[in-house]
Amino acid sequence: MPILQVQMPAGRSQQQKTAFLQNATKAIEETLNAALPSIRISLQEVEQQDSIVAGQVGAEFVNIVAYLLAGRNDELKANFLAAINKTAVACLGVSDGCIRTMVIDVAPEHMGVQEGLSAKAFRAKTTA
Amino acid sequence: MPILQVQMPAGRSQQQKTAFLQNATKAIEETLNAALPSIRISLQEVEQQDSIVAGQVGAEFVNIVAYLLAGRNDELKANFLAAINKTAVACLGVSDGCIRTMVIDVAPEHMGVQEGLSAKAFRAKTTA
Amino acid sequence: MPILQVQMPAGRSQQQKTAFLQNATKAIEETLNAALPSIRISLQEVEQQDSIVAGQVGAEFVNIVAYLLAGRNDELKANFLAAINKTAVACLGVSDGCIRTMVIDVAPEHMGVQEGLSAKAFRAKTTA
Repeated sequence: MPILQVQMPAGRSQQQKTAFLQNATKAIEETLNAALPSIRISLQEVEQQDSIVAGQVGAEFVNIVAYLLAGRNDELKANFLAAINKTAVACLGVSDGCIRTMVIDVAPEHMGVQEGLSAKAFRAKTTA
Repeated sequence: MPILQVQMPAGRSQQQKTAFLQNATKAIEETLNAALPSIRISLQEVEQQDSIVAGQVGAEFVNIVAYLLAGRNDELKANFLAAINKTAVACLGVSDGCIRTMVIDVAPEHMGVQEGLSAKAFRAKTTA
Repeated sequence: MPILQVQMPAGRSQQQKTAFLQNATKAIEETLNAALPSIRISLQEVEQQDSIVAGQVGAEFVNIVAYLLAGRNDELKANFLAAINKTAVACLGVSDGCIRTMVIDVAPEHMGVQEGLSAKAFRAKTTA
């Protein structure tokens, strides 16, 4: 259930975006011990004139919101933050300083999964 | 103040999207005891090549972030998770397994409403 | 690290959007005591037919999600909520009642910044 919603400047090539999607998936798998089927990433391209950083319209930025099922410790999260930053730099050709990642822990009872169950209820059902 | 931000694959018909917007509103109203004027939903279509699920670029997915004013109990939330999943399946023609819903509780002092007041301040003012 | 993600109706002029980006930056700087380099805002325009408010498809709305580094008190946040509402009204020509702002506090260990460090680790490093 790591679900990443990524905002980035418009204009990267499809090759760059695909490389990011694939390598970020790997980085999540490795650093957060996440099961591959549970990993999702979506990209949203933002036109230069629709963003501002440090008072400069159109300045380079990547914002990543990462929803995680609560329970991972800070060491795993730190490893994830480092790996996703490195992946964005390598694949998207942006500077490490323009990347911000925000981890949002979601409690199992606040996460809806298959059959419309909460992750908590689904876990109870499948381990019963 | 249920505010839903929905990411979905591009390409659904307007009829499907409208049906989802209207029926999801009803589902929220009924399961969360929310006042109709407070219910908002926005859709963001994501191009196939801009998302990845389980390592597969372009795989089907629906991600729903649901901001709720804090205070509802887990039973109400479970009913909401079930109803919104069912609504997405019925209206958007996606499988229940590809839908993830994340409930984010927002404290009344962290939610800005009309007049730029927090929900907490607005409530205090209107009940004074 | 105030990072604002704004959803608004499509169709505002570039002049309106730029005025909002610049004046919202100032409002954040002044009300949250935020350093200018740390302030980011992105706009996402939503087509009328892709949103619903109070059961009305296409009704006017502005949704603002504001990620803040945790630690600011409620007074600062209330000042921010008032200022950002006023800025949206003035620059985007929307009514104050259609604006919702959600403040999400992010703990320093949950925020990834330059070098892929968490804000907590970065702070420890730079003050060592």
